[in-house]
Amino acid sequence: MKLSLSVLALVFIHQTSVAKIMETPFLPLPSKAPAPKDNPTTPEKVELGKQLYFDPRLSKDGTVSCNSCHNVMSNGTDNRPVSVGIKGQLGGRSAPTVWNSGLHSVQFWDGRAASLEEQAKGPLINPGEMGMPNHQAVIDRIKTVPGYVMQFEKVFGKERMTIDNLAKAIAAYERTLLTPDSPFDRYLKGNEKAMSAQAIRGMKTVMEVGCVACHTGVNLNGANLEPGQGNYQKFPTFTDNEYVKKYGFLDDKGRSGVTKDEGDDHFWRVPTWRNVALTAPYFHNGSVKTLPEAVRVMAKVQLNKDLTDNQVADIVEFLKSTTGKFPAQSMPRLPESETFSTIE
Amino acid sequence: MKLSLSVLALVFIHQTSVAKIMETPFLPLPSKAPAPKDNPTTPEKVELGKQLYFDPRLSKDGTVSCNSCHNVMSNGTDNRPVSVGIKGQLGGRSAPTVWNSGLHSVQFWDGRAASLEEQAKGPLINPGEMGMPNHQAVIDRIKTVPGYVMQFEKVFGKERMTIDNLAKAIAAYERTLLTPDSPFDRYLKGNEKAMSAQAIRGMKTVMEVGCVACHTGVNLNGANLEPGQGNYQKFPTFTDNEYVKKYGFLDDKGRSGVTKDEGDDHFWRVPTWRNVALTAPYFHNGSVKTLPEAVRVMAKVQLNKDLTDNQVADIVEFLKSTTGKFPAQSMPRLPESETFSTIE
Repeated sequence: MKLSLSVLALVFIHQTSVAKIMETPFLPLPSKAPAPKDNPTTPEKVELGKQLYFDPRLSKDGTVSCNSCHNVMSNGTDNRPVSVGIKGQLGGRSAPTVWNSGLHSVQFWDGRAASLEEQAKGPLINPGEMGMPNHQAVIDRIKTVPGYVMQFEKVFGKERMTIDNLAKAIAAYERTLLTPDSPFDRYLKGNEKAMSAQAIRGMKTVMEVGCVACHTGVNLNGANLEPGQGNYQKFPTFTDNEYVKKYGFLDDKGRSGVTKDEGDDHFWRVPTWRNVALTAPYFHNGSVKTLPEAVRVMAKVQLNKDLTDNQVADIVEFLKSTTGKFPAQSMPRLPESETFSTIE
Repeated sequence: MKLSLSVLALVFIHQTSVAKIMETPFLPLPSKAPAPKDNPTTPEKVELGKQLYFDPRLSKDGTVSCNSCHNVMSNGTDNRPVSVGIKGQLGGRSAPTVWNSGLHSVQFWDGRAASLEEQAKGPLINPGEMGMPNHQAVIDRIKTVPGYVMQFEKVFGKERMTIDNLAKAIAAYERTLLTPDSPFDRYLKGNEKAMSAQAIRGMKTVMEVGCVACHTGVNLNGANLEPGQGNYQKFPTFTDNEYVKKYGFLDDKGRSGVTKDEGDDHFWRVPTWRNVALTAPYFHNGSVKTLPEAVRVMAKVQLNKDLTDNQVADIVEFLKSTTGKFPAQSMPRLPESETFSTIE
């Protein structure tokens, strides 16, 4: 789905119940992320998924876990331009945050996975990320850990240690990672004092300037779509400016790498605004270090507008108001390999 | 301090209070690790230290934290032969577990640090580990994180962001990592049913065979010494056997690298037995994958004895009885770098 300014009116949500609250195209964070019918979220599955998520034994040399790049303790990302896989290999794109990822209808910058389940299987066998030779090798590895064998049986039944079930467990854990109760959410729910005057001014500005052509809905990354249906936008749209070359925005063709359709060149999934103040550096290549610069760049590159310093400051303040609460997490205890090492 | 069989009798602890319990040279785990006078353990310091311990921003490229190699969730080690630092570099020795490390009188395999505080400063600036160019660069890095600035001030006072205080905080956290209440500890405290008959047989065997020449005391790695005084032993002692060459035990000269004294060639700190069933692979070079093989090797290489399969099985069962309880840990939330990335 490619949104344009002309359909903007359609996605505005009229909040009739709260008279004083500004009409916005945004929705507050739900208390739960929706789970697919074939993967209901259960406490045992979430606990298993959390262990797998934090377990570096899922990588070829035992050094990289899901958490290495999507660090739950550090706002769900690694604060690096691009991530680092096994043997110090640099990835091609910046790691998106895992927090609130259960609210996306597609995963990855290019939307190539329709679900968290599908996403989880990718990095495991990407030679530059976790580097396992194939999915069977992942299963063979975790079969050497009695605690995993026992938990898979409990959660999925006997003889059900499969890559799909492993991915289901990880996805179930990831769905629990929501950041509720941001000032922005409290505002949307009717508390007009939850956001500062500057943040409210920033919110007005993103609506006036046109950012909300794409950044709408629950996750501020577009309309709520069915799984597998993504909100994509061309980026950069305007290339005749200082930023495109400086930050190398044309070096990666994005979505067309998935669809093999030239019409999708430089299309990208619209990224979330939630907690964006905590997930520097910015853009698919992590080339922009600060949020004010990212705001300035976006206005120019996507809307061909030059924002004033005050506008930028207001928008940054608004974006900060989307910073939610990161619920306390207990550390998983990774089940032991008993008397042997699984890593060569 | 170099122990020999002849001084064994001196370190035996006579447990007169419990009639039925075997006399052993072991001591149960204390409820607290002793802290140096100039670094008392406080909750705020422990919390700060935990954040620093888990923070990969303390490494040059933001990928390696203390926890990467000494994984608190995974028995305090990385289950690899040798650890992996930034840019995929392999280290030279196997990562010792952080659990119960507060009970060692010296740190590192070669005992080159007299305290956890001193230890913590090493990997930060080791080019093959966390790779920071110098300690000032570490401090400069964390000064860019407002949450650290605030916490250092609270814990240490104004203008006290120094490498020594950083190390103190990390050490304070590490001292909290104790694994109490193992079957072995319950046995030592008088519950003769806490250990299985086989484990008790194994305990007798390690005393008869002579392993307790070195593996005594609280941490089963020697007498309780003042900080900086280590229990060192030559390893391998007997070299005319199949193991020494097979496992490359003579490739690393150990302690003499620190003292520059040839008399210390191939001397090593006696490693702990606590939780050893969970910390494969074994030895300073991580060359032995299984605990039974490690037991067989030790008897041959240190005592020139060939154990029977039954003896090995009994000793393994005894060693498993030292597996303690790993108290539940809450994840730290790493303070954010706000609107910029700290990593180039």
